[in-house]
Amino acid sequence: MDAYARDRTFAPPGKPLGVVLAQSRDDVVATLRWASAHRVPVVPRGAGTGLAGGATAVDGCVVLSLARMTAIRELSPQDEIAVVEPGVITADLDRAARAHGLMYAPDPSSYEISTIGGNLATNAGGLRCVKYGVTRDSALGLEVVLADGRVLTTGRRTMKGVTGYDLTGLFVGSEGTLGVITAATLRLRRAPRELSTVAAEFTSLRDAAEAVAAIIAEGCQPSMLELLDRTTLRAIDDWKNIGLEPSTRAMLIAQAEGPAEESAARMAELCAAASFVAVSSTPEEAAELVGIRRLAYPAKERLGQCLVEDVCVPRSALPEMITTIEETAARHGVLISTVAHAGDGNVHPVFVFDRGLAEPPPEVWAAADEVFRAALALGGTLTGEHGVGLLKKRWLGLETGPVAAELHQGIKQVFDPLDILNPGKAI
Amino acid sequence: MDAYARDRTFAPPGKPLGVVLAQSRDDVVATLRWASAHRVPVVPRGAGTGLAGGATAVDGCVVLSLARMTAIRELSPQDEIAVVEPGVITADLDRAARAHGLMYAPDPSSYEISTIGGNLATNAGGLRCVKYGVTRDSALGLEVVLADGRVLTTGRRTMKGVTGYDLTGLFVGSEGTLGVITAATLRLRRAPRELSTVAAEFTSLRDAAEAVAAIIAEGCQPSMLELLDRTTLRAIDDWKNIGLEPSTRAMLIAQAEGPAEESAARMAELCAAASFVAVSSTPEEAAELVGIRRLAYPAKERLGQCLVEDVCVPRSALPEMITTIEETAARHGVLISTVAHAGDGNVHPVFVFDRGLAEPPPEVWAAADEVFRAALALGGTLTGEHGVGLLKKRWLGLETGPVAAELHQGIKQVFDPLDILNPGKAI
Repeated sequence: MDAYARDRTFAPPGKPLGVVLAQSRDDVVATLRWASAHRVPVVPRGAGTGLAGGATAVDGCVVLSLARMTAIRELSPQDEIAVVEPGVITADLDRAARAHGLMYAPDPSSYEISTIGGNLATNAGGLRCVKYGVTRDSALGLEVVLADGRVLTTGRRTMKGVTGYDLTGLFVGSEGTLGVITAATLRLRRAPRELSTVAAEFTSLRDAAEAVAAIIAEGCQPSMLELLDRTTLRAIDDWKNIGLEPSTRAMLIAQAEGPAEESAARMAELCAAASFVAVSSTPEEAAELVGIRRLAYPAKERLGQCLVEDVCVPRSALPEMITTIEETAARHGVLISTVAHAGDGNVHPVFVFDRGLAEPPPEVWAAADEVFRAALALGGTLTGEHGVGLLKKRWLGLETGPVAAELHQGIKQVFDPLDILNPGKAI
Repeated sequence: MDAYARDRTFAPPGKPLGVVLAQSRDDVVATLRWASAHRVPVVPRGAGTGLAGGATAVDGCVVLSLARMTAIRELSPQDEIAVVEPGVITADLDRAARAHGLMYAPDPSSYEISTIGGNLATNAGGLRCVKYGVTRDSALGLEVVLADGRVLTTGRRTMKGVTGYDLTGLFVGSEGTLGVITAATLRLRRAPRELSTVAAEFTSLRDAAEAVAAIIAEGCQPSMLELLDRTTLRAIDDWKNIGLEPSTRAMLIAQAEGPAEESAARMAELCAAASFVAVSSTPEEAAELVGIRRLAYPAKERLGQCLVEDVCVPRSALPEMITTIEETAARHGVLISTVAHAGDGNVHPVFVFDRGLAEPPPEVWAAADEVFRAALALGGTLTGEHGVGLLKKRWLGLETGPVAAELHQGIKQVFDPLDILNPGKAI
C-alpha cells in the first residue's frame, strides 16, 4: 500500500485505509458513492509521477488509482481526436497517434511513465508546449465522476464550442479536487514530417538567453527550446562524458520542424555568441542532441535527493530569473541545478539535498522561498506545469490573493460539498 | 438609450433604467457596488455586435458599457503580450501589434467593430482560429470586477501557469454572468511575413468538403479555410458580380503562411475536383480573394433579416451537416445561406426572413430546431463561437444535460449570489 501512497516527492504520506484499482467508470462511481456515504477522503492518482505532492495519500483515505483504465476508446484520424481512459500512458497515446501520421503534443518529461489522467489533473506541459500549448490546449471534453458518484460529460468532440461555462478547463489542473476524470476527448495534431535540432554551448548565461530571444523574435517557431545550466551540464558530463568544455556555462537545445538546412540552420545562426554549435543532419543525430536534455533529471538524481521546482516568468525575465537562482544558491550554500523550457520562460530549479534526510533542510526551503518570491516579483508564477499539490500551498496566497482563494473555496464547495476529494491539496 | 439595449439580434430588449458609460475600473466598481446594494440587474456590453442576445437589456437593468475603456495599457514585443482594456476594438489591437511584427490572432468576422471585452465574454472565434485557436487561447489573465464590486486578478503574464483553478477560462465565454472584465493580458503571436490564398469553385458540395479533408490531412496548416455555399455565393454575385459560374455549388477560400508557390500551390493541387482554382500571386490578389469571404454577411443582409446560427460539428461530419441544412431549408421553404469555418467544422447557417417581421416566423424556428438537433446528433455543439445568450437557451439542456446545468447554477451562485449580472443569459 505504501507505493500507492506517494508520488515522486519526498512529501511524507498519510496512512490510507485502502487502495482501489479501478478498471472501469463503474468502479469509480461505486468508490465515490461509498466514500460520500461514509465521508471518507478519496485521493485519485495516475502513475504517481507528480512533483508537488498532489497524489500523496492523506490519513484514512481511499487511494483511487486510475492506472488500470488504459483503453484508447477511439482514435479518429479524420477528426484528429482520441477518446482515452485516464490510465493511458502519455507516450503510448502519442505512439498510437503516430501510426496515423498524427501526434499527441503534450510531452511532460515523464511522458514515458506518466498517465493522461495525471497530465489532465496537473495541466502538464512539456518540451513541445512552446509550440503546441499545454495539456489544457489538447483537452476538448471530459467524462468526470463527481464526488457523489454522478457522471458528468463536459466539452465536446469539436474543435470549438462555447455552450455553457468552461467546465473542461475547470477540471484540467484542479488536481483531483473537483472530480475524477474517467475519459477524455483529446485533440491530436499532424506529426511533423521532419525535425531538425540545434545544440549550442555558451560561455555566458546571458548570451544563451539572448539567443532564445533572437530565435523567438525571428519567428522560428521552435517546437522545443531548452536551456541547461552549468550545474546540470556538469552532472550530465560527469555521468555520460558528453565532452563538455570547462568554460561552458549554458547550453541551448532547440528543435524545429522542417529540413535542417532551413529551420535549424537559421536557429544556429541566431546563436551568434555560442562557443560551439551542432546542427543535426540525420534523425539519429537530432535524437542524440535531444537525448542530452532527457538526461538532465536522471543526472541530477545521481547527486542527491531533489526538490524539483517549477517557476515560470515572462520570457524577457528569463536571464534575471536564472541569475537570481544562481545567486540564491551561492548565498545559501545550496546546490541548485536548473533546466528551463526557455521558450516558455518555465524554469525548473532543482534543489539537491542529502539522500539521508527525510525532507529538504531549512536552507533549501529558505532558498526556494527566495526563488518563489523572485519569480512572483518578475511577474511570474509559482508553478508553470507541475501544480501546487501540497508542497507549494504555503506560497499560494502570495500569488492568488484572498479574493481568488475565496472563489476557489466556493467552487470546491459546489463540486465537492463534503470535501472528500483530495482534501488539503491545490487550493 | 434604445441603441444600448440591443445587440445585433432581433431579440426584443427590455427597458433599462439607464446606461453607464464606464471610463475606468473605478466606474465599474461604483456601478456594481450600487447595483448590489439596490439589487439592480447589470447587463455589461462591448460594441453590441453579438449574435445571440447576450447583451440585450432586461427590464429595469443598468446597461454597463465598457466601450469607452479603450486603452492599450501595455504592449510588450519581447514577451509577446498586450494588456488592454475591454473597449479596445479587436482589429485596433491587431494593428497595434503588427507595428511590432506581431499580431492578435482571434479575428471574428466583426473584428473591425467588435471589442476585446465582447470577444472575451463570448470566447469569440474567427477565420484564423483554424490555426491559432479561439479567444480563450490568447487570454493569459484578466482583471475582473465581481458582482459585489471587489476586484479580482486571474491568470498571469506568463505563457504557462497552473496555480489555482482556471478562473481565466471560467470568465472567458461566461457572457457577463460571472463578473465584468476591466482588463485582459493577451497573448500576441508573430505575424506571418507572407500569406498566400487559394479560391476554388466546386460543382458539388461533397467535392469541396473532400478538398477540406485533403488539405487538413496533408498537414497544410491553413490559417483560414472557409466554405461558402451556393446561396451565399449567389447573394454576393448578385450584388458585386464576381463572375460566378451558374454550375458552382460551393467555394473554398484557403489561406496559408509562406510563399504561394509552396503552400497555396499545394492546397490548389488538393482541390483536384474543383471546376476553377485561383491562386494569389500578389498580396493584393490575396486580399481580393479573402474579400469575397468578407462580403458574405453584408450580401446576406441585403436579402432580408438574418438569424445567424453557429453550430459546430466534428470536421468529418461537415458534408452531412451542410447537406442536412440544405434539405431542411427545402423542406421548410426557408432561405438558408451558409458559410463555414470549414477547417473547424464551424457552420454558420443564416436563416433569412422578411424584413417586416419583428422576429423569425415559426418555419424559421422549426428549421433552426432541426439544424440544432442534427448538429448535436452528429457529435456537435449548438454554438462554436457566438455564445448561448438568449436565443439558444431553449436548446441548451439538450447539449449540457441536467448535471452540468446544476453545476452552472452553483458556480453562478458563488460569483453572483444576488443574480444581478446579466440575469437570464447563457446558462
